[in-house]
Amino acid sequence: MAEKFKVTPWEVRGNIDYDKLIKDFGVEKLDDPLLKRIEKHTGKLHHFLRRKIFFAHRDMKFILDEYEKGNPFFLYTGRAPSGHVHIGHLVPWMFTKWLQDKFGVELYFQFPDEEKFLFKQNLEWDKAQEYLHENMLDVAAVGFDPKKTHFIVDSVHAGLMYKEAMKVAKRITFSTTKAAFGFGNETNIGGIFYTAMQAVPAFLPCILKKKKMPCLIPHAIDQDPHFRVSRDVIPKIGFYKPASIQCRFLPGLGGMQQDGKMSSSAEETTIYAIDDEKTVRKKIMKHAFSGGKDTVEEHRKHGGNPDIDVSYQWLTFFEEDDGRLRNIYEDYTSGKMLSGELKQILADKLNGMLRKHRESREKAKVEDFMLSEAKFK
Amino acid sequence: MAEKFKVTPWEVRGNIDYDKLIKDFGVEKLDDPLLKRIEKHTGKLHHFLRRKIFFAHRDMKFILDEYEKGNPFFLYTGRAPSGHVHIGHLVPWMFTKWLQDKFGVELYFQFPDEEKFLFKQNLEWDKAQEYLHENMLDVAAVGFDPKKTHFIVDSVHAGLMYKEAMKVAKRITFSTTKAAFGFGNETNIGGIFYTAMQAVPAFLPCILKKKKMPCLIPHAIDQDPHFRVSRDVIPKIGFYKPASIQCRFLPGLGGMQQDGKMSSSAEETTIYAIDDEKTVRKKIMKHAFSGGKDTVEEHRKHGGNPDIDVSYQWLTFFEEDDGRLRNIYEDYTSGKMLSGELKQILADKLNGMLRKHRESREKAKVEDFMLSEAKFK
Repeated sequence: MAEKFKVTPWEVRGNIDYDKLIKDFGVEKLDDPLLKRIEKHTGKLHHFLRRKIFFAHRDMKFILDEYEKGNPFFLYTGRAPSGHVHIGHLVPWMFTKWLQDKFGVELYFQFPDEEKFLFKQNLEWDKAQEYLHENMLDVAAVGFDPKKTHFIVDSVHAGLMYKEAMKVAKRITFSTTKAAFGFGNETNIGGIFYTAMQAVPAFLPCILKKKKMPCLIPHAIDQDPHFRVSRDVIPKIGFYKPASIQCRFLPGLGGMQQDGKMSSSAEETTIYAIDDEKTVRKKIMKHAFSGGKDTVEEHRKHGGNPDIDVSYQWLTFFEEDDGRLRNIYEDYTSGKMLSGELKQILADKLNGMLRKHRESREKAKVEDFMLSEAKFK
Repeated sequence: MAEKFKVTPWEVRGNIDYDKLIKDFGVEKLDDPLLKRIEKHTGKLHHFLRRKIFFAHRDMKFILDEYEKGNPFFLYTGRAPSGHVHIGHLVPWMFTKWLQDKFGVELYFQFPDEEKFLFKQNLEWDKAQEYLHENMLDVAAVGFDPKKTHFIVDSVHAGLMYKEAMKVAKRITFSTTKAAFGFGNETNIGGIFYTAMQAVPAFLPCILKKKKMPCLIPHAIDQDPHFRVSRDVIPKIGFYKPASIQCRFLPGLGGMQQDGKMSSSAEETTIYAIDDEKTVRKKIMKHAFSGGKDTVEEHRKHGGNPDIDVSYQWLTFFEEDDGRLRNIYEDYTSGKMLSGELKQILADKLNGMLRKHRESREKAKVEDFMLSEAKFK
């Protein structure tokens, strides 16, 4: 029997059945004709698309129709600060950067610095603010175009956002949030209200630019309930229903069965953007769930199983080169490559990536990215 | 059998039993020893206190204790724009001005411009904004000291308020708002959250001034549920429990049995601050519920009943002179004064008051009153 899983914006656990999620959430599969249509505009597809890491969407056809008519979309994604950024967080951001580069569009990046404060009993406001500042640097380090990227921080930009959130909130009942998020009598009133704030960046740029524009939201699938709710409301206040494109989760080092989604709070099985090279290598060698055999002899004879091997699965996220990935797959399944060797390849890959991230982070200036109303006047 | 009545921040109807309200809400009666203690600081008591129009309180003793120790309070009251200001609204504001003058304290006046938008299905945002601007002029016209008075407009000052509201909201469950306000599944999530915004001005001044100060909230009794909830929360985030002092409602022209509280939407039985002299006189002559007898002969013989006569009841609010009010009472009960004469006295009184209000309103500058963070730096 398949293990039970759960995916909400507040909790992801178990071995996730993405086909079931597509049905349950009512999103559409990213199919080949649609991928071809994207490719027409971007050239070679990002490996996240080639490998179905971004696997589902809502209204991508509308986004492309409008784009082809000369009405480009803007991008919207976000990060709710509650801890250090880990490499799972980087996945949708790297993809968002690719979309920004390929389509030449603006990005609005929300930092809802109240969200995790509201939903985590023990997270203090000041601690969340520390994470906010750290996280903003990590996002800036991804390499977004500062001229076309605007950070929206809920507590900082409340002057702009609050009244728009009211227009959304008036049209969402408690019943709706019960159904979408499983809220109850014990939920705090900030948490109940919060989804209205997450809706705002999907239309705020239209207000700032005084122009009706389509919005595309790249995000991990667990955030879909928010946008399911806001897609019903936003057209009622005069804007396009936001479109979205969803990715799978990077599993934790413990493996898909155990950690369907990497968790900031599971320190041993999580690689943080701030982890140094030694730590990265140590965590992988020690904790990465292996698809290898119990003895070298057996492994050489029967080969490893990449489908359950976290190191291999992580390489499908972070090794862009299809040829190199195929060689690893073949060598591992044939038994030529041992589990330890595979882990070293992953450690090298991630350390290279994180070295660049750290360098970029040191140069990053958050001020360059902060949304300023003045820029739109 | 006594008629049923209902008092919530969203709805007031029926013939209000204020003694029952004191018990139901858990406020304390303003008793003579407390009034004497206030008088020590203010000199002659305001007629709203002498006549028990302000009749209840929470923690007034604490306010006076701290004041006497050299730790003065600040005042906080407000107006949620959803229509024209009527003379019932002026009652707590006139009293607040008196408190400001007598104690020499600062006033924070909140305009929660989202509240009525959230709770009135048909009120559009832009319409509420029109009322906001009109209402701010009416409040400025009351004559508060602009150097010591700060207007807080939720949509304008959200940048300051939102993060503080989050700290409140995290500590209030949906259950609590169900019990305090009667919310249910159909309530919108903005309405559920709103009470957190109404809590903020009760401690925001302490943040702006970096000083722990007592807060005194003069308000009409229907707003008490908000403060009942926030009094539980505010000490948990490091500030004093706000104290409050509550007034009765000015009844509508239809009389206490029918209109326990004057309502902005009942145009015929409401006197607005913008009504001209002719309109005021006409409304009173035509609609003021009379305690007079059916014929002049009968009235001359038996006299009128001031206890149910709206014109007389209104004079208890607006005729400051106790001697003059006593004469009117005696002449009316003896039958010497006819109902029409009493109505003329009231019309003259109100028109004099509203003339001054209009003159003051024309000179008023809202800018002089707007809260500016810069002033506190």
